[in-house]
Amino acid sequence: MLDSLKSLLPGKVSTTPADLEAHGKDESYPLQRPPLAVVYAENLTDVQATLAWARENRVPVIPFGAGTSLEGQLIPQGPALSLDLSRMNRILQIAPEDFLAVVEPGVTRKALNEALKGTGLFFPVDPGADASLGGMAATNASGTTTVRYGGMRPNVLALQVVLASGEVLELGRAVRKTSAGYDLKDLFIGSEGTLGIITRLTLRLHPLPEHVHTLRVFFKNLEAAAQAAYSVMASGLPVARLELVDARGIAAINRYLERSYPERPALFVEFHSSSREALQAESRLALELMQGAGTLSVDAAQTQEERTAQWEARHQAYWALVNLYPGKAYLSTDTAVPISKMPALVAYASRLLGEMNLQGSILGHVGDGNFHTLVVFEPGEAKAEAFSERLVEHTLALGGTCTGEHGVGLRKKKFLPKEHGPALSWMRQIKGLFDPEGLLNPGKIFD
Amino acid sequence: MLDSLKSLLPGKVSTTPADLEAHGKDESYPLQRPPLAVVYAENLTDVQATLAWARENRVPVIPFGAGTSLEGQLIPQGPALSLDLSRMNRILQIAPEDFLAVVEPGVTRKALNEALKGTGLFFPVDPGADASLGGMAATNASGTTTVRYGGMRPNVLALQVVLASGEVLELGRAVRKTSAGYDLKDLFIGSEGTLGIITRLTLRLHPLPEHVHTLRVFFKNLEAAAQAAYSVMASGLPVARLELVDARGIAAINRYLERSYPERPALFVEFHSSSREALQAESRLALELMQGAGTLSVDAAQTQEERTAQWEARHQAYWALVNLYPGKAYLSTDTAVPISKMPALVAYASRLLGEMNLQGSILGHVGDGNFHTLVVFEPGEAKAEAFSERLVEHTLALGGTCTGEHGVGLRKKKFLPKEHGPALSWMRQIKGLFDPEGLLNPGKIFD
Ligand SMILES: Cc1cc2nc3c(=O)[nH]c(=O)nc-3n(C[C@H](O)[C@H](O)[C@H](O)COP(=O)(O)OP(=O)(O)OC[C@H]3O[C@@H](n4cnc5c(N)ncnc54)[C@H](O)[C@@H]3O)c2cc1C
Ligand SMILES: Cc1cc2nc3c(=O)[nH]c(=O)nc-3n(C[C@H](O)[C@H](O)[C@H](O)COP(=O)(O)OP(=O)(O)OC[C@H]3O[C@@H](n4cnc5c(N)ncnc54)[C@H](O)[C@@H]3O)c2cc1C
Repeated sequence: MLDSLKSLLPGKVSTTPADLEAHGKDESYPLQRPPLAVVYAENLTDVQATLAWARENRVPVIPFGAGTSLEGQLIPQGPALSLDLSRMNRILQIAPEDFLAVVEPGVTRKALNEALKGTGLFFPVDPGADASLGGMAATNASGTTTVRYGGMRPNVLALQVVLASGEVLELGRAVRKTSAGYDLKDLFIGSEGTLGIITRLTLRLHPLPEHVHTLRVFFKNLEAAAQAAYSVMASGLPVARLELVDARGIAAINRYLERSYPERPALFVEFHSSSREALQAESRLALELMQGAGTLSVDAAQTQEERTAQWEARHQAYWALVNLYPGKAYLSTDTAVPISKMPALVAYASRLLGEMNLQGSILGHVGDGNFHTLVVFEPGEAKAEAFSERLVEHTLALGGTCTGEHGVGLRKKKFLPKEHGPALSWMRQIKGLFDPEGLLNPGKIFD
Repeated sequence: MLDSLKSLLPGKVSTTPADLEAHGKDESYPLQRPPLAVVYAENLTDVQATLAWARENRVPVIPFGAGTSLEGQLIPQGPALSLDLSRMNRILQIAPEDFLAVVEPGVTRKALNEALKGTGLFFPVDPGADASLGGMAATNASGTTTVRYGGMRPNVLALQVVLASGEVLELGRAVRKTSAGYDLKDLFIGSEGTLGIITRLTLRLHPLPEHVHTLRVFFKNLEAAAQAAYSVMASGLPVARLELVDARGIAAINRYLERSYPERPALFVEFHSSSREALQAESRLALELMQGAGTLSVDAAQTQEERTAQWEARHQAYWALVNLYPGKAYLSTDTAVPISKMPALVAYASRLLGEMNLQGSILGHVGDGNFHTLVVFEPGEAKAEAFSERLVEHTLALGGTCTGEHGVGLRKKKFLPKEHGPALSWMRQIKGLFDPEGLLNPGKIFD
């Protein structure tokens, strides 16, 4: 059967054990299962050819970006092809005069920002991994700057997608506003490869801030840090980044990256401003508010290198923690609540780790009310999953969501009936409309 | 037939000529057609009862907010009920600690901001009319502050909707981020009453800016004003409002509101900032950029009253213009393009008015690349429609959209095949999924 695929796409189909293994897992989900084959698409025609073959042979297709997702989005649930888009990595257009870039889906966020050097512009969405922009749209990713610049939805203006049938749609327009009919662009953002394959993205760029102030603020305990983050948000200050890292996270960073940060719960904070005076006023006020919650010490980055080093540390926190516990398994929860509830949920998560006698670390985008509890456990042990269930239960009771940014994949499916009620069945019906044969990433988001 | 409706909803059904007339038109569309009856819903149960009756009697239902739409969204295309939601006007919750408000759909944007007085918060989306928040969500409205705070999508976090079947769905969550499944909330935003009735909205509020600077800048000609607006946007300055009013618009305002503004093309500009220094730096830079394009004079509002008066003038510009030409008909186009193309499109619209020998005025949210050309014509004359067609044709060729904010209604339907291509048929299929009997606002967006 695979021979016909190989002759359809010569040189683009791999069945090497290494390729199959790399495409049958993600960065966190405990189970793995190799796909039948990996297709390395190089253009739209390859994507359509793969889908034609898949329809004919009734083999599902799982789009694959950079493979950095965490909730099982990439794991085949039966025989399936992995459609790897990493070779579709051309930047098709950069239009600084319109703050726009047009890219293929395999371009990573770092590659795009590298290409933007010298334009004075940047693409803000920065998940902790160097994800592909197609994968980021497919999971509705966000990152440290989302509190200021928004996540993928406001920063993706248009998509080209290929449906299971091979039909090509252009969704959205390269404009800042449109009210011309139903918003299919945002329906495909966050659909995790279950509705169509994203083959091109039109992205909104932002001017690099002229003045930046970056702080690390350390607190006596986790509750104080969470409370301080809320105070800053409640003040309405235009914070650009506001990240929580707990003491264990800091300790892990110190070890992994050879830093010597105080091993206390910390907020990593940044302000972006068009004037130095504004910047000073904003950071002064933020500091006063944080001091009110009980700070121990404050470090301000003095140079661009120090700033880069600080955010590098934040982005590496996950790997630093994983590195602390070799041979263990990890589960990273991803709860988000209305911001006033965030300090209470952080406290709840911390208490619950203790109660359940689990090792873990709390870190995340607290300015958005979103944080992750990374739970460490013995492979096969059920306790971490039980922790996640109790935490999500509490999150939903507080009006929150079971996933702020990582998406549903396999792991969060069980929470959707409670989170969405009857709306879930309409999501299923939309899936049935666009992909009646269930060819695209089946078993993800819902069964 | 209507007797059964009246006995189902005693005291809530009107067939008075005045009510029928008021519900068979909008603020601009030239044709009118009274509905069979107007139902004044007071709660969710009334909405469901109306839909049950409509299903049984196969009579379509057209939701009605404040009736300020412009593209024919409210005009019955055959016998239909108007479902007026203006009595569902309770503010259910204001949660300043979470920057949230929960409202019924009939609450208007002004009523909400009135209720927010004293909280330090406001709801930013401000179409020129005192529209209902349900209607604003249904048309994906925006306004003068959208360039800074976004339109309805980022500012509506959750919706309660009732489908044609009477089923009630809760879409979205009261959180700043979620990746939990398909984005149905944004699908219903902008659906113009064709997918469901919005019965509750959870809105995102913003802190009132601590420092505000409001300017009126007058230019030697329209091209210079448009070019200046683009220069300000291209600089990346965090402008809060950036509106163009042409010389005829200013003259109309002077007459209608007894002002004495210089009768020249103007930009109405505002900056919002958390510090006075930032504000000064930003407005100084903006002024320098605008002077580079050729300003004639600049007025800065000195007091809150002056600021209010200036934005009142901008919001009344439509009525001021309509008032200039009693007995005439009006068509307000609503094009939006990538921002670098805006000056060229403004120049094109102005030239085309001249070429076609039409009276008109150009004004709009140029910071978003969106502006309106209000064309004045003799009732029945076809020239204005021809103008709109040529302008939209040019807009689409520049990568723009046929409607930045007013929506499709009846008037923009003909442009959607060109704007969306094959995606349009998928919008139709989604309509068919949610409303298989075509009960909700039939004939709008598509036939
Ligand atoms: C250390 C670490 C830190 C992280 N931090 C964050 C964070 O801060 N914020 C955040 O949001 N996430 C974070 N993540 C999760 C992950 O990076 C994001 O989910 C990211 O968006 C996945 O992109 P990807 O290219 O790796 O996609 P993949 O993992 O390859 O795929 C993810 C999903 O998208 C689908 N998909 C991929 N490409 C396409 C396409 N072209 N068309 C259609 N569907 C497609 C896949 O089928 C799959 O369902 C982190 C992960 C790690 C390992
Ligand atoms: C002077 C003037 C200036 C304007 N300026 C702007 C502007 O700056 N920006 C802008 O975006 N618009 C503007 N508009 C247009 C208009 O104000 C907006 O389209 C507004 O959002 C309409 O709200 P409404 O409550 O009046 O809705 P209506 O006109 O009553 O209805 C509009 C549409 O929404 C549907 N609808 C209404 N309520 C509901 C509900 N609860 N559930 C489901 N569907 C519903 C209706 O069926 C209809 O299709 C302007 C209009 C005027 C007259």
